[in-house]
Amino acid sequence: MHIDPEFMRRIAAVAARESLPRFRQSEAVSNKVEGGFDPVTEADRQAEKHIRALIKGEFPGHGILGEELGAENADAEYVWVVDPIDGTRSFISGIPLWGTLVGLTRNGDAIAGMMAQPYIGELFYATGQGAFYEGPHGSGGLQTRDTVDVADATMFTTTPALFTGARKDSFERLEKSVRLSRYGADCYAYVMLAAGQIDLVVETSLQPYDIVALVPIVEQSGGKITNWNGGPAELGGGIVAAANSRLHDAAMNILHG
Amino acid sequence: MHIDPEFMRRIAAVAARESLPRFRQSEAVSNKVEGGFDPVTEADRQAEKHIRALIKGEFPGHGILGEELGAENADAEYVWVVDPIDGTRSFISGIPLWGTLVGLTRNGDAIAGMMAQPYIGELFYATGQGAFYEGPHGSGGLQTRDTVDVADATMFTTTPALFTGARKDSFERLEKSVRLSRYGADCYAYVMLAAGQIDLVVETSLQPYDIVALVPIVEQSGGKITNWNGGPAELGGGIVAAANSRLHDAAMNILHG
Repeated sequence: MHIDPEFMRRIAAVAARESLPRFRQSEAVSNKVEGGFDPVTEADRQAEKHIRALIKGEFPGHGILGEELGAENADAEYVWVVDPIDGTRSFISGIPLWGTLVGLTRNGDAIAGMMAQPYIGELFYATGQGAFYEGPHGSGGLQTRDTVDVADATMFTTTPALFTGARKDSFERLEKSVRLSRYGADCYAYVMLAAGQIDLVVETSLQPYDIVALVPIVEQSGGKITNWNGGPAELGGGIVAAANSRLHDAAMNILHG
Repeated sequence: MHIDPEFMRRIAAVAARESLPRFRQSEAVSNKVEGGFDPVTEADRQAEKHIRALIKGEFPGHGILGEELGAENADAEYVWVVDPIDGTRSFISGIPLWGTLVGLTRNGDAIAGMMAQPYIGELFYATGQGAFYEGPHGSGGLQTRDTVDVADATMFTTTPALFTGARKDSFERLEKSVRLSRYGADCYAYVMLAAGQIDLVVETSLQPYDIVALVPIVEQSGGKITNWNGGPAELGGGIVAAANSRLHDAAMNILHG
């Protein structure tokens, strides 16, 4: 099954209509502190409602799993996985590295997906027949880098504070081995890996809706993405994404000492 | 002295002409690894050359201090301070949080400044008569938040790895006191503070050209910015920027134990 890019654009547009007006609204965000109206959750819910309606209209037999509104027909052959705003901490800080994530699985395997960043006006997607981007200064295909040595790699993680216990030691060993280690990019790190800008993304404790949409983007641009044990990334948990499978092997060897 | 926003826009435009074509050029960046052509330095140099020419044309009696091309007439009453690409690590990772920084000092005090992010299409500036932004979805005045408790604050720093010795202990004490601590936004963190999106930026080991342009943006939007000892931020070193002076006092008290 191959997903029309026009369908990705329609999803991005309905999500943006809910998320963008609530982004950088300082009053609304500071109200959250007082336990009142929470603009992020509100944007998340409203966007998910509209995304679900679009999917059901186009693919009535498919299931849907969403961050905010739960599972529906989740044992169907095809299931869509939706996170309307991934990168909540970026969203509430005004940093435009959050994204709308929508992925399609077939029998549990992620086969197509999209990440949209509406403030910048960017869309990254994998249709099942390749990975592509559209942005404010052009569009084209996505292709990962050919970096094979960890010593040449740029690595991203959300924050080193998420790693604990043995995973903390493993992550720090890998961090000492790379050329540049950076923090804080959320879903944006995976699309930069797909775009050939960075080489590794290593994370822990992800939910399926944090990662399903990104798996086909990484894979169809030439990258390799698994969990920390080398198994499928679709269920979340610890994630290791690399620009190519040689670099993935090398990173896994260091993580597993 | 007050600087016309149109002059800021002209500076942003000549810098973007050099920086944007070199941003996200994966081939060019991977060549850097081999010790060949370095696209960031090249963009930096070319942009600085054009920015200096604009300044000299408009203000022939002023001095200029630039990251790449050094000092010229630096003992003039008015001196411009230029960093064509602040946030090199974001630039080489494809992350659009780097910026072109240009500030104007009078007898060493920063009185006007701008930060431009051309990929997103954003300009943040302080003219001497207030602080403003222009972006892809609108424009307006900048105003910091009224957060007064450190426990309610969102704090940014480039990376915790930069703090060593006693400063590391101080930073970690402050980090434990804030609600949310995030890494990696470079100059973008200061403009988000000015825009009322975050509350604190704490850094160490900055150069004057990293900070001079940002001082007026923070101050003219209602914030307070000093070095770690409470002195002027213009010379760089350790920097503490806060949304208002009560929050600045509270953060300084925690940093100095």
